[in-house]
Amino acid sequence: MYLERINGPEDIKKLNVDELKVLSSEVRDAVINRISKIGGHQGPNLGVVELTVALHYVFSSPIDEFVFDVSHQCYPHKILTGRKEAFTDDNHFRDVTGYTNPKESVHDKFLVGHTSTSISLALGLAKARDLKKEKRNVIAIIGDGSLSGGQAFEALDYAGEYDKNLIIVVNDNDQSIAENHGGLYKTLKELRENNGKCENNYFKSLGLDYVYCDDGNDVEVLIKELKKIKDIGHPIVFHVHTIKGKGLAYAEKERERFHAGGPFNIEDGTPKYKGNGDNYIRDSLIKILEEDPASLLVNAATPGGLGFDDNIRKKYRDRGQFIDVGIAEENGVSLVGAAARGGANAIFATFAPFFQRTYDQMSHDTCLNDSPATYLILSPGVYGMNSATHIALCDIQMFSHIPNLIYLAPAYKEEYLAMIEYASKQKEHPIAIRVPRLTYSNKKDETDYSIMNRYKMEQLGEDVAIIAVGELVPLAMEVAKKIKEETGKEITVINPHFLSGYDELALGSLYNTHHHVITIESGEKFGGFGSNISSFFADSDVKVINLGLGKEFYNDFKADELLDQCGISLDKLFNLTKNLLEIKK
Amino acid sequence: MYLERINGPEDIKKLNVDELKVLSSEVRDAVINRISKIGGHQGPNLGVVELTVALHYVFSSPIDEFVFDVSHQCYPHKILTGRKEAFTDDNHFRDVTGYTNPKESVHDKFLVGHTSTSISLALGLAKARDLKKEKRNVIAIIGDGSLSGGQAFEALDYAGEYDKNLIIVVNDNDQSIAENHGGLYKTLKELRENNGKCENNYFKSLGLDYVYCDDGNDVEVLIKELKKIKDIGHPIVFHVHTIKGKGLAYAEKERERFHAGGPFNIEDGTPKYKGNGDNYIRDSLIKILEEDPASLLVNAATPGGLGFDDNIRKKYRDRGQFIDVGIAEENGVSLVGAAARGGANAIFATFAPFFQRTYDQMSHDTCLNDSPATYLILSPGVYGMNSATHIALCDIQMFSHIPNLIYLAPAYKEEYLAMIEYASKQKEHPIAIRVPRLTYSNKKDETDYSIMNRYKMEQLGEDVAIIAVGELVPLAMEVAKKIKEETGKEITVINPHFLSGYDELALGSLYNTHHHVITIESGEKFGGFGSNISSFFADSDVKVINLGLGKEFYNDFKADELLDQCGISLDKLFNLTKNLLEIKK
Repeated sequence: MYLERINGPEDIKKLNVDELKVLSSEVRDAVINRISKIGGHQGPNLGVVELTVALHYVFSSPIDEFVFDVSHQCYPHKILTGRKEAFTDDNHFRDVTGYTNPKESVHDKFLVGHTSTSISLALGLAKARDLKKEKRNVIAIIGDGSLSGGQAFEALDYAGEYDKNLIIVVNDNDQSIAENHGGLYKTLKELRENNGKCENNYFKSLGLDYVYCDDGNDVEVLIKELKKIKDIGHPIVFHVHTIKGKGLAYAEKERERFHAGGPFNIEDGTPKYKGNGDNYIRDSLIKILEEDPASLLVNAATPGGLGFDDNIRKKYRDRGQFIDVGIAEENGVSLVGAAARGGANAIFATFAPFFQRTYDQMSHDTCLNDSPATYLILSPGVYGMNSATHIALCDIQMFSHIPNLIYLAPAYKEEYLAMIEYASKQKEHPIAIRVPRLTYSNKKDETDYSIMNRYKMEQLGEDVAIIAVGELVPLAMEVAKKIKEETGKEITVINPHFLSGYDELALGSLYNTHHHVITIESGEKFGGFGSNISSFFADSDVKVINLGLGKEFYNDFKADELLDQCGISLDKLFNLTKNLLEIKK
Repeated sequence: MYLERINGPEDIKKLNVDELKVLSSEVRDAVINRISKIGGHQGPNLGVVELTVALHYVFSSPIDEFVFDVSHQCYPHKILTGRKEAFTDDNHFRDVTGYTNPKESVHDKFLVGHTSTSISLALGLAKARDLKKEKRNVIAIIGDGSLSGGQAFEALDYAGEYDKNLIIVVNDNDQSIAENHGGLYKTLKELRENNGKCENNYFKSLGLDYVYCDDGNDVEVLIKELKKIKDIGHPIVFHVHTIKGKGLAYAEKERERFHAGGPFNIEDGTPKYKGNGDNYIRDSLIKILEEDPASLLVNAATPGGLGFDDNIRKKYRDRGQFIDVGIAEENGVSLVGAAARGGANAIFATFAPFFQRTYDQMSHDTCLNDSPATYLILSPGVYGMNSATHIALCDIQMFSHIPNLIYLAPAYKEEYLAMIEYASKQKEHPIAIRVPRLTYSNKKDETDYSIMNRYKMEQLGEDVAIIAVGELVPLAMEVAKKIKEETGKEITVINPHFLSGYDELALGSLYNTHHHVITIESGEKFGGFGSNISSFFADSDVKVINLGLGKEFYNDFKADELLDQCGISLDKLFNLTKNLLEIKK
């Protein structure tokens, strides 16, 4: 056991090549121990074991600085930089997160979870080094998939005129989350198949120096090659061919399923837990693609998130109805807007945090042109991902104010189904639907969503109204029920459906019959939906209490606990409402 | 005069090559007539005259669809598609805007003014065509400068695997707004100098077919070449070398000054109007670069907007303190964040509408890491650019809610100077400063901005308080003065300075002494700063009236008129305040 002796990168330098090979195998076992038991990013981490050992052997972190793109390949790095117990000891799994984090270690430069950013970040560190007249290597480690994001190109392009040390390790395992898309990948393939030679080298076309290494899982070769470029005086791309999922036969084979996921049985890779199989998002999209031959679904490298497996993708790709643009949300959003303008029934769907890259494309490209495209913003709010790197607690702030955009919030699965149907049939405006985890109402939603900004009165009462955004409507209904049971009073519950405008009739109807409005939402309170409701009532006698999350990058939280801390739980809302009911107007 | 006979593209097809040459010259004269008298985009339009004539000769708009990137090269297109009077007749200049606009003509596919979007938009039109089983050419026309934006790369990359008709005309005049930056431009230069040959062709590296044409101002050659690629069954890049400013010797020479600008004297190109010469933004940035050798200024292709002329740029570029990243705001924002994290005093500055491309880089790359970078958001609000394509009326919505980001709003030049000094010296948090057109207070601002969220009480009175964002503070002071003069009463005026948080003390102090608060801001009201103030007071007896702009992409407006329509003018605010003062609490 060499891993026992490794408490930091300096210990790696004491080993010889044969020992480093054994160490690599021990690191891989540690990775497997963790991912098989609690899940995480699997394939990317298994692929970079030798590369990480070699990087830490040749360079000297934290003086030399590593920036891991998206950082879902940082487990071996964590193991080698003082955090191995979080991989070898089941009791310590929760000591570290799945992403680099400066709060965990000086060897982690950034907290990061979005792709395509590492070259920009490395350039920033390199410029700071230059200005402070320091000397060190700055190394970005970026996967082939991440190269499809525009920011990676922008940074490579600037690196092509930068003239100091910068090492860009392209970790090419021939796979994004799903398969890669884009013409660039033909060139990467040509490079891999011809030991770094090709007719038109993308990196060189941007003015960059370039070295290829085919043996990305051979620690000895990697060390030899990395030594050659250490302390280089200009930017260079070190293109390494690695095997995604290396070391687990089933992961090497099923590379998409083993990109990331939950615990699995180590013998055969079968998952330990299974979903319930109902995937209404997938089914709703397939329904549209089937019913309307001029419909188009675009996704950005997360087809699994839509429930689109290989077969479904292939079927609709062959029909020209499905596009995966790669990790290129900007292109996806604009392309879909233009396709809608051109008469297609066009939908773009991906996870909420990744919509953060598309504000300008939503606003300038689509909404300024009032193009009737549909956008599905998946997993926003507190019930989305709970890593600070992937939270999307400000989707309402980002989107609800954009002119022409209709921003819809379903409260139940059935409302989502009615909304996507409405959105995909109308030809008036761009529509975005926020799709958090939803419960089922088990009643068909017959709402006519073409009546703009009409809020749904879930229940009409008096004195106090709760306006609940989307997935919090069922909670508001529970509160109302408990109030009725315990005080005999009926309060009002409003499900606004539309986050992008006011229902002046519905809100106005509260003036004379209600003295308090409570707003609840599953994202940040500052600038949120509730603040617009406050603005509406600000000049009236109706008092408003806005509840929502704080202004913070929450990390590793439990959604219901966090909501409760912010006053959004059955007990707290019941008490608040009861107290308000006791206030005379 | 052939132009007389041209009322639409079909008329161009009736001319022979010699006539087309004369027509080109007439079109150029029409462009010059307009730009010399009312300004606009000069160089780009002069350069594409022959290209536009050839495109309309070979293709058949509106059946074939043109998408002009950024569309600041669309004047010849407008002249040839029924809008020539807006160029030849001084009385009709205002009939058309400087950008393509579907409301003006069926030959304009999109309203567009941001760069790097045309290939995405063209792909969307092409996909809609395919799904509807129609047949036509879709042609994107994109300049070399626009290629530096990540979205253009994302779209080229996807085009590399698309398999139907798409023609991407790269209009290469070897110039962005200023000079180009990035390694890609070495490759474009090599291509231009070797008649389309080079060692590593960027476009081919993305899997695209490619043709070069060196005679981009020769209508005959262009027609011959374009005929060859018309109706092509796959994407192709048609790389054309044109001369920016073609036809005006001084514009061909001073290519940056003649990118865009105001009216000029046709004899020698001297400007008809001159600025006042004071450029405090430039001076404040130079002061920082001079005082702190570890300071870094990054800009995205708009150095002129900072007052950084060739000499200043060169001086600080040579010192490693100035970077122009090209039209690559994403890279700029992240690079600066990382440089700040690495210990540099790093500033990124560009115009507000272009910050719309950087939400994710601000939030995830910089703010999640709490990197103490400084961002200057130039010309936001109603006093910024007044074209719908370039308005930035939602900067507060975009930025004020991002955790860790301090969003500052100076009301006077002197406050801006104090804020930039504070921002560039502190090492705690990312700071963004919104910098609209500011008046001078002529008093040094001694505010200690390290006291977080402290609002400035410009004047303390009673009953009514006006909270004015940034550049509207002087108006609020005028209102207060007039109220004093006409009613003898003192009202309160608050200049919040911080848009990203509450001064609970200052706001709390109003509870017992004020019955109304009026908020005024120069951007959209929905989700704006005022709505947060409403949220703060929503549960109290203080009533709030939010004033701001509507939810609309305003176009070609006069700032003061628009504000007045929204109740923000001396008279309207005076009347409102006077009425409120008459209300008993």
